[in-house]
Amino acid sequence: MLRVTIVGCGGYGGVGAIELLLQHPDARIVALLDVNDVGKKVSELYPHLHGACDMAIVHPDEDRTESDVVFFATPDGVGMKNAVKYRAKGVKVIDYSGDFRFDTADAYRDYATRIGLSPEHAAPDLLSQSAYGICELHRDKIAKANVVGNPGCFAVSSILGAYPAVKGGLIDADTLVFDAKTGVSGAGKKVNPTWHYPHRYEEMNAYKIAKHQHVMEVERELSIAAGRPVNVTLVTQAVPVARGIMTCIYAKAAPGVSYETIFQAYFSQYASEPFVQVHGEKDAVGNRGVRGSNRCALWVNFDRRTHTMIVVSHIDNLVKGQAGSAVQCMNVMFGLPETAGLGSPGTYP
Amino acid sequence: MLRVTIVGCGGYGGVGAIELLLQHPDARIVALLDVNDVGKKVSELYPHLHGACDMAIVHPDEDRTESDVVFFATPDGVGMKNAVKYRAKGVKVIDYSGDFRFDTADAYRDYATRIGLSPEHAAPDLLSQSAYGICELHRDKIAKANVVGNPGCFAVSSILGAYPAVKGGLIDADTLVFDAKTGVSGAGKKVNPTWHYPHRYEEMNAYKIAKHQHVMEVERELSIAAGRPVNVTLVTQAVPVARGIMTCIYAKAAPGVSYETIFQAYFSQYASEPFVQVHGEKDAVGNRGVRGSNRCALWVNFDRRTHTMIVVSHIDNLVKGQAGSAVQCMNVMFGLPETAGLGSPGTYP
Amino acid sequence: MLRVTIVGCGGYGGVGAIELLLQHPDARIVALLDVNDVGKKVSELYPHLHGACDMAIVHPDEDRTESDVVFFATPDGVGMKNAVKYRAKGVKVIDYSGDFRFDTADAYRDYATRIGLSPEHAAPDLLSQSAYGICELHRDKIAKANVVGNPGCFAVSSILGAYPAVKGGLIDADTLVFDAKTGVSGAGKKVNPTWHYPHRYEEMNAYKIAKHQHVMEVERELSIAAGRPVNVTLVTQAVPVARGIMTCIYAKAAPGVSYETIFQAYFSQYASEPFVQVHGEKDAVGNRGVRGSNRCALWVNFDRRTHTMIVVSHIDNLVKGQAGSAVQCMNVMFGLPETAGLGSPGTYP
Amino acid sequence: MLRVTIVGCGGYGGVGAIELLLQHPDARIVALLDVNDVGKKVSELYPHLHGACDMAIVHPDEDRTESDVVFFATPDGVGMKNAVKYRAKGVKVIDYSGDFRFDTADAYRDYATRIGLSPEHAAPDLLSQSAYGICELHRDKIAKANVVGNPGCFAVSSILGAYPAVKGGLIDADTLVFDAKTGVSGAGKKVNPTWHYPHRYEEMNAYKIAKHQHVMEVERELSIAAGRPVNVTLVTQAVPVARGIMTCIYAKAAPGVSYETIFQAYFSQYASEPFVQVHGEKDAVGNRGVRGSNRCALWVNFDRRTHTMIVVSHIDNLVKGQAGSAVQCMNVMFGLPETAGLGSPGTYP
Repeated sequence: MLRVTIVGCGGYGGVGAIELLLQHPDARIVALLDVNDVGKKVSELYPHLHGACDMAIVHPDEDRTESDVVFFATPDGVGMKNAVKYRAKGVKVIDYSGDFRFDTADAYRDYATRIGLSPEHAAPDLLSQSAYGICELHRDKIAKANVVGNPGCFAVSSILGAYPAVKGGLIDADTLVFDAKTGVSGAGKKVNPTWHYPHRYEEMNAYKIAKHQHVMEVERELSIAAGRPVNVTLVTQAVPVARGIMTCIYAKAAPGVSYETIFQAYFSQYASEPFVQVHGEKDAVGNRGVRGSNRCALWVNFDRRTHTMIVVSHIDNLVKGQAGSAVQCMNVMFGLPETAGLGSPGTYP
Repeated sequence: MLRVTIVGCGGYGGVGAIELLLQHPDARIVALLDVNDVGKKVSELYPHLHGACDMAIVHPDEDRTESDVVFFATPDGVGMKNAVKYRAKGVKVIDYSGDFRFDTADAYRDYATRIGLSPEHAAPDLLSQSAYGICELHRDKIAKANVVGNPGCFAVSSILGAYPAVKGGLIDADTLVFDAKTGVSGAGKKVNPTWHYPHRYEEMNAYKIAKHQHVMEVERELSIAAGRPVNVTLVTQAVPVARGIMTCIYAKAAPGVSYETIFQAYFSQYASEPFVQVHGEKDAVGNRGVRGSNRCALWVNFDRRTHTMIVVSHIDNLVKGQAGSAVQCMNVMFGLPETAGLGSPGTYP
Repeated sequence: MLRVTIVGCGGYGGVGAIELLLQHPDARIVALLDVNDVGKKVSELYPHLHGACDMAIVHPDEDRTESDVVFFATPDGVGMKNAVKYRAKGVKVIDYSGDFRFDTADAYRDYATRIGLSPEHAAPDLLSQSAYGICELHRDKIAKANVVGNPGCFAVSSILGAYPAVKGGLIDADTLVFDAKTGVSGAGKKVNPTWHYPHRYEEMNAYKIAKHQHVMEVERELSIAAGRPVNVTLVTQAVPVARGIMTCIYAKAAPGVSYETIFQAYFSQYASEPFVQVHGEKDAVGNRGVRGSNRCALWVNFDRRTHTMIVVSHIDNLVKGQAGSAVQCMNVMFGLPETAGLGSPGTYP
Repeated sequence: MLRVTIVGCGGYGGVGAIELLLQHPDARIVALLDVNDVGKKVSELYPHLHGACDMAIVHPDEDRTESDVVFFATPDGVGMKNAVKYRAKGVKVIDYSGDFRFDTADAYRDYATRIGLSPEHAAPDLLSQSAYGICELHRDKIAKANVVGNPGCFAVSSILGAYPAVKGGLIDADTLVFDAKTGVSGAGKKVNPTWHYPHRYEEMNAYKIAKHQHVMEVERELSIAAGRPVNVTLVTQAVPVARGIMTCIYAKAAPGVSYETIFQAYFSQYASEPFVQVHGEKDAVGNRGVRGSNRCALWVNFDRRTHTMIVVSHIDNLVKGQAGSAVQCMNVMFGLPETAGLGSPGTYP
């Protein structure tokens, strides 16, 4: 039985991990840590956990529990400052932030600079032990990694949605546009006038236009796939749903490339993936179909009049876009069945 | 491993049972029956089930599967017409409709008349084998029953919320008012201008004022508790949430009865119940805390200026109000742990 | 042309007054005052006002504009501290808070104590010049008043909904229960975890159970109607709508009183009221029908089995429950047509 | 006083026109026609109109009223079959459908074929008297037209958002992508499982990918602007809002073209337009700012890393996207102030 510590258990990312791990056959939570609400039961913060998880929250500095893996469900900067002490005890690390999404100090510097943080990584020695946590692309590396940088929610949806086309050279990658709509939970539980119910209902708005930091992960992964540097446009938008990301991906198809070729590339790429589902243009796909599950549904389309590939990528931002990916990585890191604890279909309606 | 057949798998009540039974350690679904969408995979109707449950839907008349228990997730009139053939094979029956909520032909006649159906029960011989499916009140009878009438969603929330006060004689039962707000899923998946998104968002409305049929179950149970006939007022209302029922229960307290006495009665009644949670007036309770779970949260309050008991009863109408209650009854009927398959806390946010 | 000053223009109550006064044929806004966002155009805060109202916000202490009437769209305590200086210049006052809802220092003391404020009124001399701002009940007094205490939103819906029955002695007023559901805008624009979109969607919760301060206005008005002190139970609840209040009002009918008698009393009471609409039990009424308008829709029902009157009262909390009532009072105070500026039906859907 | 007849008054497009015309200083509704609900008051269908508009619905064949202009708030095929008889009496025509959006029989044939209708126009003689109803682009032609084809909602948002860049040759028009998110009211009042509240809340989905018929209007207008045929990609999506369209418009900027050049082109193009508002990249813009108003808010952005223009175009689909545009055209056709009756800012929140 894998022993799991969650740092930052009081946020949406932490509670998502709790929900999944409670159902996991081979893992159990041994410590819930947070700097806020210390001493409270987590079920006081999140009443739906009443009876299912009534553990008290412990301050990270006070934790003496032994564990096999620690989830840092924390903002940028927390994981890298605290991972070393866990690694010293042999504990594996899964970090939700950008701290370990880049495996060189240089790449991290670019990222940190972009988001206005100190450019120096706090634990540069760990970077070489780290892997980027999209199992569909980096399964082998994750299996051997001691540290995983869990991907950004927009990045998961964008990378999975563009990868086969870029890798296969089926599109002009320089024309890639990612138009990404997210639910409000992506911004976490911190209140803000933007997310105030009377303002948010009936609201749609773009934000951080061409400035969202997740684009750096997307470009890194797609550059690897393309074998050359690729820059893309990412426009993030918020709509009045609580959970979910729907990203429309546009790119001019390479000359002579047809819908059928593109669909086949996606189908082949993901045929044996338990959590990626490829739909052809005759299907009808929506975000409700992945809500509460760890699946990514890709809907491959083609505009024959403009020779443009259109892939619509759907995930639950809090599952495949966050806690689900983390648990999937944990399974791979510890040689468990990759789908363990991730079988829940969610609820409908 | 209990073998379960679900009739009416294509409705919200059926899909709710599927979701729960997929997580059940001691039961498995052997047949999904419906008169609509025969031959389709249920995951075509409900894409979130993709990979989790891809069974094809079979017409009820074509089903040859053997099972231990059948769920009729069907409207009034279906279960009683079809239960006999299942009983003849020794299969136990759990019916979601009003068909088996009343255990005498006379009581059924009153109910059927009220809702405009034929007053004659189609399987009167089964009535004596039946129990009313609120385990918290009828656990022993359910354990021995071959047929269970799963309670109405409003009835669950109302009965659990009023029972201790009525049984204890702590209120004037003739002043009982149940003001019940429901989410839209209570009306099922059938489209209607009332539930059309552009109409329903920002809408609140009462309906079937003092005419909802669930009141008959409520009065029957509370009359038993009171030891005399009790009539109550129930006003059902729809608000723009998908899942959930919040029922405010009002009654004049009996002379000399205090808040403390009432709270203690509730606390004692439900102290060992796994799915009922009693809150005192200093707590803050909302429906989000029970969403996706089989729990009923009761918030006991008192208006000292008017000597009025106020209990707010919260359930998820599709779980404790429907499929969860059915699975709980199944567990009791077959001697399984009562909480088996019902441990999921749901998801938040 | 009436010159109107709005204090507290930056809140929902202020912006509601702006929206209405922009359409008013006989009034114009001359000053928008607030202690926050001074110097900004109000259309920067509320972009929908762009082009329609681009006035800059002035600090209340810096205002030198002359006006005929001032709206205090401000919390308790602000209006009474600032009304005197306006009155000294002959300006009439309409206050949104509880400051002028009670016309004696003693009644105010009870109210202030209940909500934890200093029991001394800051402008006791103005109390005798004040009227309670429900035109349907106090039209003549409002017409002569220099100061109006605009009613609380729950109070408007409750008082209009119970008045004819209480006045006519048709119910046992001591059994009155007001079960009031409100939209989130009732809490204003201040952010709070309770109103955070991911929490509030799919949430329903009661709050301030039997403790909401608006009950004091309700009891005062109904006591006058009854000719004796009346205490009632009010339970306020929040549901995920932005605008609207639906209050279900329950009371045991007096012996021998029928539905027809009650309906007739409501119909007669409000027959010539432009903003109150009485529906009989055969109608179907919802909050969408009054959204964006100054109307109150009363749906009169009766539970013959329990001899209980049930009136469902619907308003838009920001119009008839706030800014609309204020404008209606203004019209009456200045001898304008009572409906001036209040003709907009709102928008649907 | 302009006399207006509305055909199809029972749909959202009809009720939108009623709401606006009730506030119009120079127009009044003389007849409300529909094939459904004949004889009912329109306020029975739409209770918010109670007191404001209680006219009875007349069957179009029974109408004997004289009017100056008729609005066909009807689906494709209705307007062109009935316009001739109105024109014979000198009545001007504004049609909401695609019937008069193309001014040659050939262009109509392409459109009709695309949407599966008969390719022959029913009133080809009227095409030469018709204008396309975007006043910002065709004001002079509309002023002289007897028939106006009111634009599609997606088309309004797309054309206004791309026009200055295309006209100025500032982008590679062949790379244009329109990613358009709409509220549910765009689909009208007809119920459908897709718009059923329990399904739609928390849902986001693309539909008619690269197949929506509004693209033909967009291409026609942009081809005129470009001086050469232009094909573009339009992907329509539905999110859980009732009102509003947000279209993200992407195109590679022409070599050497900067953000500043593009912004200036937009600013100049629309500087004197009362209903188009241009925002620079430092602003923050959302759909709530145009909700309920006839304004289009354009937010001009630029991705310098990929040399891509990004314009986010916001409208209320039922006002500027439908009834508001129709009233604006009416004003221009009859020489009234273009903003008459269109001054309402809507309501917030």
